[in-house]
Amino acid sequence: ALHDGRVRVVAHPPQAERFLARLEGVPRFACTIASTDTAEIPEISAAGETPEKRRYTAALDSEFLLYGSTLTLGEIPKNPLGPPSPVVITRAGLCTLGQQAVIVDAGTRILPRVPLLTLGGTPGRCITSGAALPHPFPGAFLATLAAAARQLADRAPWVILAESVPGGTTTALALLEALGHPARGRVSSSIPGGNHELKEKVVATALAAAALPPDAGGLQRAAAVGDPMQPAVALLALEISRSKPVVLGGGTQMAAVAALALRLHAEGIPGNPEHLALATTRWVMEDPSADLAGILHSLPRPVPAFAAGLDFSRSRLSNLRRYEEGLVKEGVGAGAAAFAAFWTAGIGHDALVAEIEELVHGLDA
Amino acid sequence: ALHDGRVRVVAHPPQAERFLARLEGVPRFACTIASTDTAEIPEISAAGETPEKRRYTAALDSEFLLYGSTLTLGEIPKNPLGPPSPVVITRAGLCTLGQQAVIVDAGTRILPRVPLLTLGGTPGRCITSGAALPHPFPGAFLATLAAAARQLADRAPWVILAESVPGGTTTALALLEALGHPARGRVSSSIPGGNHELKEKVVATALAAAALPPDAGGLQRAAAVGDPMQPAVALLALEISRSKPVVLGGGTQMAAVAALALRLHAEGIPGNPEHLALATTRWVMEDPSADLAGILHSLPRPVPAFAAGLDFSRSRLSNLRRYEEGLVKEGVGAGAAAFAAFWTAGIGHDALVAEIEELVHGLDA
Repeated sequence: ALHDGRVRVVAHPPQAERFLARLEGVPRFACTIASTDTAEIPEISAAGETPEKRRYTAALDSEFLLYGSTLTLGEIPKNPLGPPSPVVITRAGLCTLGQQAVIVDAGTRILPRVPLLTLGGTPGRCITSGAALPHPFPGAFLATLAAAARQLADRAPWVILAESVPGGTTTALALLEALGHPARGRVSSSIPGGNHELKEKVVATALAAAALPPDAGGLQRAAAVGDPMQPAVALLALEISRSKPVVLGGGTQMAAVAALALRLHAEGIPGNPEHLALATTRWVMEDPSADLAGILHSLPRPVPAFAAGLDFSRSRLSNLRRYEEGLVKEGVGAGAAAFAAFWTAGIGHDALVAEIEELVHGLDA
Repeated sequence: ALHDGRVRVVAHPPQAERFLARLEGVPRFACTIASTDTAEIPEISAAGETPEKRRYTAALDSEFLLYGSTLTLGEIPKNPLGPPSPVVITRAGLCTLGQQAVIVDAGTRILPRVPLLTLGGTPGRCITSGAALPHPFPGAFLATLAAAARQLADRAPWVILAESVPGGTTTALALLEALGHPARGRVSSSIPGGNHELKEKVVATALAAAALPPDAGGLQRAAAVGDPMQPAVALLALEISRSKPVVLGGGTQMAAVAALALRLHAEGIPGNPEHLALATTRWVMEDPSADLAGILHSLPRPVPAFAAGLDFSRSRLSNLRRYEEGLVKEGVGAGAAAFAAFWTAGIGHDALVAEIEELVHGLDA
């Protein structure tokens, strides 16, 4: 643990140390949003108060991240039991860095009212179709991704790529399994204790429907059982990694993206895997119902991973204290934003918690 | 004339000199695209080989600017008589600067297959309706513009805001007249000699249909008889000008945007007018059928203006030599990109022309 426990290493300490040494200056922070109809499966996700409201989660997260208030509905997303979306952590972290997020649209049904870096993607079908995304990806999509990567990397010393995709841990499990990484019982969930049984049933249906041939490529596997964020972020990460360090901001969802990026690199897509890392929260790192480190150790190359040592157990706000029960663990790059606030801006733990509390307090006022 | 005639002053030399002294480092270059149905009026524009192909001009310009080739159709826009779109100048200038353009969509019918910074605007109706854009602009639009401005200014020492809007000199005339600046006979045209009579007839119809009350505000006037690019770029420019110099990249179209920005600032929208300037080509500066300097001198504050001293009269390519006949004069920020290549990158005149020739030669090969 570095910085008095504010920055923790989840996996691959030697690579983690080398990676940290390369992180100088203020990163650009991009959050990719996308919809997957997988999120419509009852009980699959708690990233939103009700199934209806979950459709708005990515839009509301994006608006709050940029404006500190929402436009599309009059509230930010929350867990059905009350705790607010982790976007409050992300916004506090970015304010500390003096940075505004770039919202990237990889295919979202309900668009936020913010400037969007639009990639031309479409929302994903339910993965039980076995044909979630259009395949093959058109050449224009690959050209667009490369140009977007250049735009995100422009003048930034390093880049954080985060996500807001309700239903995304189920598509993460599907993608990991489709790529040959055993992940059953290992992915996190917005539901405490995990909803592994339901997820595994959905993923088994998806993989059976996809009937992937043994020689299927990485993009084909992602198109069959993934969500639109995964290939977009994997390709952005590879392209940016050619010149700059990239931190995938998220937990097991981003472990799946890392797996896809390594697969695509092995298939010949240019990139520098040594420039890839992952950053998440302590709640994911210590999630008793998941195993991020286990997933990372199954990847063919060491991708170092960090966790921001945020602790809400002594927060004065009861809805934040409930994070410690596992009601909310990660999302919108909360862990990576806190990691950058700690590492780059050098803010203290209690000072960042106070910033987050002020944001949450303003919501309830 | 500075730099051996490569950088010329079109208007307000003392302010121009002070502004130039502030331009240090490599600018960000953003090109805002939009559609106005005004471009569907027969004979109104030559920014495209045929009326049908003109609908693709902004998309093809954007693709060529980013990729050096087009995806949506197999060719770049050209004048009906042959000369290629000025995007060849813009691309050569940006390559010299090592920069990739950001394409901003303010409301475009046929979207380019590039990453788009999307503002949530819609294409404009024909201005003869007198109600070209939705009004009042929703609050979300203004919030989006401010956030987009912050994104464009991030880490850039100064910013160029360019445009690709076929039909845009007619909407420029309409906006200038609606704001009380006499502009008849003064706006440039993609048609040699200008098509002033047709333009003025269209604008007279537009202003009569709009029946603007004397106390109408700037945004109301732009919404009545403008195109979607104008209010978007005026608001982006004002917001960015609060912290950084902004160069409006274009000729009389950007003079209309400057007029709108000054009006909005006088109405209370924050900004720093001393951080606003304009850059165009020598072909606009010397256009015998237009009067950019005259328009600029009618504005309530001095907005300094520059022209890149590009001269194609000795080019080895006949289609470029035809620029000297006034067949193509400006567009896609060609003048501003050349200005920045001369001023910031210090490239010589003949070297830049050689880069442009190579791009055009590649098209014909």
